[in-house]
Amino acid sequence: MSLDGYVAGPNPTLEQPLGEGGEQLHEWAVVLESWRRSHGLSGGERNADAEVMQESVDTTGAVVMGRRMFSGGAGAWEEDQNADGWWGDEPPFRVPVFVLTHHAREPEAKQGGTTFTFVTDGIDSALEQARAAAGDKDVLLAGGGSVAQQYLRAGLLDELQIHVAPMLLGGGVRLFEGRVDPGLSLESTRVIASPSVTHLRYAVNRA
Amino acid sequence: MSLDGYVAGPNPTLEQPLGEGGEQLHEWAVVLESWRRSHGLSGGERNADAEVMQESVDTTGAVVMGRRMFSGGAGAWEEDQNADGWWGDEPPFRVPVFVLTHHAREPEAKQGGTTFTFVTDGIDSALEQARAAAGDKDVLLAGGGSVAQQYLRAGLLDELQIHVAPMLLGGGVRLFEGRVDPGLSLESTRVIASPSVTHLRYAVNRA
Repeated sequence: MSLDGYVAGPNPTLEQPLGEGGEQLHEWAVVLESWRRSHGLSGGERNADAEVMQESVDTTGAVVMGRRMFSGGAGAWEEDQNADGWWGDEPPFRVPVFVLTHHAREPEAKQGGTTFTFVTDGIDSALEQARAAAGDKDVLLAGGGSVAQQYLRAGLLDELQIHVAPMLLGGGVRLFEGRVDPGLSLESTRVIASPSVTHLRYAVNRA
Repeated sequence: MSLDGYVAGPNPTLEQPLGEGGEQLHEWAVVLESWRRSHGLSGGERNADAEVMQESVDTTGAVVMGRRMFSGGAGAWEEDQNADGWWGDEPPFRVPVFVLTHHAREPEAKQGGTTFTFVTDGIDSALEQARAAAGDKDVLLAGGGSVAQQYLRAGLLDELQIHVAPMLLGGGVRLFEGRVDPGLSLESTRVIASPSVTHLRYAVNRA
């Protein structure tokens, strides 16, 4: 997230899926060895940010994401120019991924352990399927903003981990938008900071 | 600021100037010895948060704030039910305070070193007057959200210090709203965290 609360910049396109300036949100990550390894690349930095990322890789047993995050599209899959997603033949997730969509589609198995399952019956169902697939590990809600808000409002998140990039986007997709359950409270459980990014972790408590 | 970006909650009133839930934003501060001392109270906690607050007290030579922050009102002063401000006879600032308003008014000197000067000719003028009054010390832009955005957009801020409270307000006044100067960049210069609050500090660089 940018300091001003955006997880993507304004005016996203197929060439610029994170909108104007949005790529910079992830600059801290793409230089890391742990990120590069999960993307099939060698080299990269080892530092406190890399440990936070590696921890997330190690503890994640399944991923949930929205259709927008998967392809940037909406509507029927046959009209989606990016229907195969952003990540090619060997996506970096390497675990089962559950994609929320209103448009049914057969599951797909990719190289390296990533499977995409398309869930049309709502966020509870996606979470239930992801939990079953994750076993003892965590379910990572990857995004985007709209799906994160839906899960937060439904009281289904146990933890928030937000990587605040030192930048202002001035527009785009907000991570937090609109009302929250008044019975929900946050507990700050960890802060790890580097010049590139501040990792904020919160436990979500319900009254 | 709440984690979702608000510096005041929704529906502010004279009884609840920071809106619904907004008082909680400052819970970390009101328990501190350094806060209590500036408000003429004894006792309180000494911890890392107190040091951050004391540092701000020590380095601040003048304060700029908006009319909304000063009284919660707008329009003519004679119709403002809270025209004397929120802080009584001995406000906690103890330095010259410059209040941005569209409505002219004579300056007022309070007990304990606080003076209120009402500036009707814009943000540049308020800053210039505050700089002259601050001498070698810093000018603190106290708020609220609208004034902070105006100064940020005008490229007049050298540093941001944001105290992120572990809570979601779900509505109210955002600290960051709308476009920013693309030539402006942030550099994370310090993070201090406690369970009560995370203090984020950034240098503002201009291209």
